[in-house]
Amino acid sequence: MPTTNEYIQLIEESLKNTGIPNSPEELYKPIQYILGLGGKRIRPLLTLMSAGFFSPVIETAMPAAMAIEIFHNFTLLHDDIMDKADIRRGKPTVHKIWGENTAILSGDAAMILAYEQLNRLPEKFLCPVMKVFNQTALQVCEGQQLDMNFEKRNNVQLHEYLEMIRLKTSVLLAASMKIGGICAGADNTNLNYLYEIGLGLGMAFQLQDDYLDTFADEIKFGKTIGGDIINNKKTYLLISALNSENKNLVKELKKWIEMPEFDRAEKINAIKNIYCETGVNNDIQLAAIGYINNAVEVLNQIDTVAQAKKPLEEILFSLMYREK
Amino acid sequence: MPTTNEYIQLIEESLKNTGIPNSPEELYKPIQYILGLGGKRIRPLLTLMSAGFFSPVIETAMPAAMAIEIFHNFTLLHDDIMDKADIRRGKPTVHKIWGENTAILSGDAAMILAYEQLNRLPEKFLCPVMKVFNQTALQVCEGQQLDMNFEKRNNVQLHEYLEMIRLKTSVLLAASMKIGGICAGADNTNLNYLYEIGLGLGMAFQLQDDYLDTFADEIKFGKTIGGDIINNKKTYLLISALNSENKNLVKELKKWIEMPEFDRAEKINAIKNIYCETGVNNDIQLAAIGYINNAVEVLNQIDTVAQAKKPLEEILFSLMYREK
Repeated sequence: MPTTNEYIQLIEESLKNTGIPNSPEELYKPIQYILGLGGKRIRPLLTLMSAGFFSPVIETAMPAAMAIEIFHNFTLLHDDIMDKADIRRGKPTVHKIWGENTAILSGDAAMILAYEQLNRLPEKFLCPVMKVFNQTALQVCEGQQLDMNFEKRNNVQLHEYLEMIRLKTSVLLAASMKIGGICAGADNTNLNYLYEIGLGLGMAFQLQDDYLDTFADEIKFGKTIGGDIINNKKTYLLISALNSENKNLVKELKKWIEMPEFDRAEKINAIKNIYCETGVNNDIQLAAIGYINNAVEVLNQIDTVAQAKKPLEEILFSLMYREK
Repeated sequence: MPTTNEYIQLIEESLKNTGIPNSPEELYKPIQYILGLGGKRIRPLLTLMSAGFFSPVIETAMPAAMAIEIFHNFTLLHDDIMDKADIRRGKPTVHKIWGENTAILSGDAAMILAYEQLNRLPEKFLCPVMKVFNQTALQVCEGQQLDMNFEKRNNVQLHEYLEMIRLKTSVLLAASMKIGGICAGADNTNLNYLYEIGLGLGMAFQLQDDYLDTFADEIKFGKTIGGDIINNKKTYLLISALNSENKNLVKELKKWIEMPEFDRAEKINAIKNIYCETGVNNDIQLAAIGYINNAVEVLNQIDTVAQAKKPLEEILFSLMYREK
């Protein structure tokens, strides 16, 4: 059974051998660039680990793992245009370097390359994997659309926010696991378990992301905190705090949100205090831990040897204590 | 054997029943909008006709026909952003109505919906159809990239232009036919014939488009002519004329191209005259007819009853005399 690091090595090697064309350079170089920026490769890792639960031949799942990682990078390419993001993983975004048109078109090509990877799967897995992949890919688009819609709304409710992050983030982690299982011949019960674990992992991951954007130690976190607060981003924290029963704190929070000009550090500090006083800083962590606990329980149900589960258990536990 | 009109009816009906979701509205409405703008449906038509050459059960090819039409509309959605086009089929473009972000994301969703259609094919056809579809889809992106590259270059050669339109336009028509053949169980020889016919049809179609943009009768054509001339677009006509041996005409042509300000009608007339005097207006039509003649010859080789070929023959011949 490979270790997490061995899995990652297999993934990096395979990514180098996906055979992305070279010409025209303007089309394919941005894809190589964004894939080369790294990242944790969590999605293909989940695919391979899930396949490993049910089959010793995890290579069968590799094309699906590649498809998912390439698809994920495609979403980053297009999301960065839509979100006008200048920096991705500490480097300039594709549209900043090559312009929006190139970022649109390279993203399109990346999505097609993802499907080209899927088409390398054994014939019997192609249709069931495509079914999960397509449904998930559409949901990711739906999540991004909801996220954009929320920017223009002032009455976003917590359940709507949770549904948005389920679609935008969690379903792809869930599908990564389920697809790994499909490629290893897992039965439906186990496939559903895999999906549920991935979903929980995704929810916890996103909630932790929200938490860390506000409460992380800047040095350990490795990036500036408070971006969500400055941009009045409707995260779990903000939405929950706005629903607090302490009307004075809600009033103060609204004052800060509506303030056209402010001192950056002052606003961050003030809102952090409100989050702590309303207790939503604890609520969000409890919510994340709830998802993780559920995922761990479901993982226990999965019909495979304890040793195979270990790397995934480590990922789940590390999420609870992650600082970056 | 269905007539062309009956094929079109089947296609329109099937497009209405593709089950495009409704929510979130911002994501899916633009897809329904662009699919609803109509168009000649030439690609799905070619798919069904090609299937009809080899099998009476053309319904088998319908999901592929839908996938190709949806994919084509996805390319229109994204191309219109990149080309900053305001009007498509006489109506405002998606990004003009809903904004660029929506057009990007709806386009992405449309591409996924196309693959969802492919996944409805019988299992044995899925992999071979995906192979042609993916390769073609990438080529279409490559063609669009070359087209954008050409805008910034002043030394585009005729063979480069022909390669660009082969990728941007022709391969999708070629794939439409080949995929129809695959779904009807045609052998490799016939599949290659189908591909070649589609390729020729696409080349002729694009060259005719270039010709008509300059030389059509505005009333019969139904839209303003001369757009390519005004924008100095590097079409077959412009590139050929710039390579003319008549150095005086080339000099005059360059003068018009470089002129920063001009009277629209005057420029159109002057360049039309240069095209006629250099004879490139004839060259382009001869080139188009050459492609059509070749396609007709290849069609003769195809192993099916003469009656089945009739609707396609009509399309090929109508192209030669098309005025809109």
